[in-house]
Amino acid sequence: MMKALTYIEPGVIQWHSVAKPTIKKSTDVIGKVLATTICGSDLHILKGDVPETTALAAKDKKKGIILGHEAIVKIDSVGKSISKFNVGDVCIVSCITACGECYYCKKNLQSHCNGNEGTSGWILGHEIDGTQAEYLRVPFGDTSLFKVPENIPFEKLLMLSDAIPTSYEIGVLSGGVKEGDSVAIVGLGPVGLSALLSAKTLKPKQIIAIDLDDSRLELAKTLGATHTINSGAIKGTALSNQVLHITKDLIPGREPGVDVAIECVGIPQTFELCEDLITPGGAIANVGVHGKSVELKLQDLWIKNCQITTGLVSAFSTPELLNKVSDGSLDPSPIITHHFKFDEFEKAYDIFKNAATTKAMKVVLTPN
Amino acid sequence: MMKALTYIEPGVIQWHSVAKPTIKKSTDVIGKVLATTICGSDLHILKGDVPETTALAAKDKKKGIILGHEAIVKIDSVGKSISKFNVGDVCIVSCITACGECYYCKKNLQSHCNGNEGTSGWILGHEIDGTQAEYLRVPFGDTSLFKVPENIPFEKLLMLSDAIPTSYEIGVLSGGVKEGDSVAIVGLGPVGLSALLSAKTLKPKQIIAIDLDDSRLELAKTLGATHTINSGAIKGTALSNQVLHITKDLIPGREPGVDVAIECVGIPQTFELCEDLITPGGAIANVGVHGKSVELKLQDLWIKNCQITTGLVSAFSTPELLNKVSDGSLDPSPIITHHFKFDEFEKAYDIFKNAATTKAMKVVLTPN
Repeated sequence: MMKALTYIEPGVIQWHSVAKPTIKKSTDVIGKVLATTICGSDLHILKGDVPETTALAAKDKKKGIILGHEAIVKIDSVGKSISKFNVGDVCIVSCITACGECYYCKKNLQSHCNGNEGTSGWILGHEIDGTQAEYLRVPFGDTSLFKVPENIPFEKLLMLSDAIPTSYEIGVLSGGVKEGDSVAIVGLGPVGLSALLSAKTLKPKQIIAIDLDDSRLELAKTLGATHTINSGAIKGTALSNQVLHITKDLIPGREPGVDVAIECVGIPQTFELCEDLITPGGAIANVGVHGKSVELKLQDLWIKNCQITTGLVSAFSTPELLNKVSDGSLDPSPIITHHFKFDEFEKAYDIFKNAATTKAMKVVLTPN
Repeated sequence: MMKALTYIEPGVIQWHSVAKPTIKKSTDVIGKVLATTICGSDLHILKGDVPETTALAAKDKKKGIILGHEAIVKIDSVGKSISKFNVGDVCIVSCITACGECYYCKKNLQSHCNGNEGTSGWILGHEIDGTQAEYLRVPFGDTSLFKVPENIPFEKLLMLSDAIPTSYEIGVLSGGVKEGDSVAIVGLGPVGLSALLSAKTLKPKQIIAIDLDDSRLELAKTLGATHTINSGAIKGTALSNQVLHITKDLIPGREPGVDVAIECVGIPQTFELCEDLITPGGAIANVGVHGKSVELKLQDLWIKNCQITTGLVSAFSTPELLNKVSDGSLDPSPIITHHFKFDEFEKAYDIFKNAATTKAMKVVLTPN
């Protein structure tokens, strides 16, 4: 047996004893969890917004389903097909489980992996048991784990499970951020701040951080934002005019506006704001998870030679991001605000859920 | 003096005598027009939808402003800075006038050229006199003209002024069409059919042509569409389901839907249809000129790793397209339905304006 945090039904989680996972397929790896964290999507599941997970939990109401898709593990046992890892290796668990062989994996669209386990790349803590436990089964271990460089603290590595590759692939790379650019980041939660940190590694000239919360804006400034705007204090046309003003003298002959606007909230207002911020030839990289449609102002945008991209992370960039952490150009640890032991899991959820008052960004949980 | 077709005021055009253009700047070229055509945007101007052109026409009500931005010319005289062309050369006039030196020209975004003449790349027949005349002044001749290969009929070349590079750059290249892909083309006017022809040069496996008009669908079939759908007969979910059915077995393990949907109409319904047609990882390339906003279903698209692009042509691809015409892989001439002499200009506008009944696609006008 082992201890795990399971989702029982909407509103109900429990830290309790469940069966320890075992190798089910030759491509599986079992890992002892050394560190894990909580993501906004765990809160969505807990609210009952993810019906497939609620349905799975309902199948075994006593156990429930173990939440979480981010972790660092020490390998405890390996299936007989595993060739890249050995027992004792310390690895980052990718939030995306990738078979490595399907049509989508070959296209570096592991997010849409339809290998023979689950229906898509995000299965941990969603369609199968996840990382918020003492032990974890990782399907397709060879293509879903990344060995951790030695001598780097877990605080710098844990967010490479999800927030950092999400913001880098779906925000920074899809948006085409490059040296000298002007970049706006709309929304400064853990993913928005990750976008800021990963964008900075490509040396844009301006990073304009936009959020409603002054303490997040302060943190963004510390992490490298060249400009901050409180979107509660300055709204609508005044807000977009301020961005146009900041960007107007970036390069002679260039129209004002940012080269890349990275949307990290997931509501119509923030996406529609991005539409007003981009320069001709600019890009909107949508990272936010949306529940509603938005108004796309094609009457203005058709002539702007712009690009809009969306997506779920594929984690193809994790090796590159590990290199950036190793060479010191990327350090996600300042986004971590709270540390807990495993038996404080329910308290950690409370603190993370009430981020508006607790100012929690990313929390780390480690074994007792 | 010379004869020209000028726009006087909304609803009023006139074929009449005006002053012959002369070299104004050392970078100018004067060309004798050998062939020109009419574009949908000329009709927009004529309806009064383009206020800046109406304002310019109003400045000289007797002359008006010469319409048109597409032509083949024989060079009549050159400014003293012109180095690439000589008197007597036969050239395609690009619809985009590009200074070749500004921030945007250096980025291959000549559509947004802000060189010292006019405010953007599309100035001919919009902000200065255009191509529907016996003679034409082309500013920035060295970077706005393309020498015509010998022994190729003008019918195969004239659409390289606008419709072919527009559909190729903004539709096919922005959408990332590649060999083996499934492509939907929504709207089969001259630009939609140009998208079909230019997409075909990159060897997609499926080209699904969608329009309300059976005669256009027939023509699309002749030009290489693998499937046609009449969107007046099959609508809504039934229409998108038919596209999903056509594409479902393209590659094992691939989700149904097209890799690239090229929007060539410019109304909300056709753009929103494209949103329903794309496969995960797919692209919508918007070519249509829109007057209204559209509903972007981000609640479905955020997870699809998709790309949406917009834009006005830059004509950087014209040399590549000339090669395709030369080697026979691209022949735009079947899109031309009518031929007129210059003194039939007003009749040609009537025929083109009433395309629903006359079945006019592209019309060619040549000197008397």
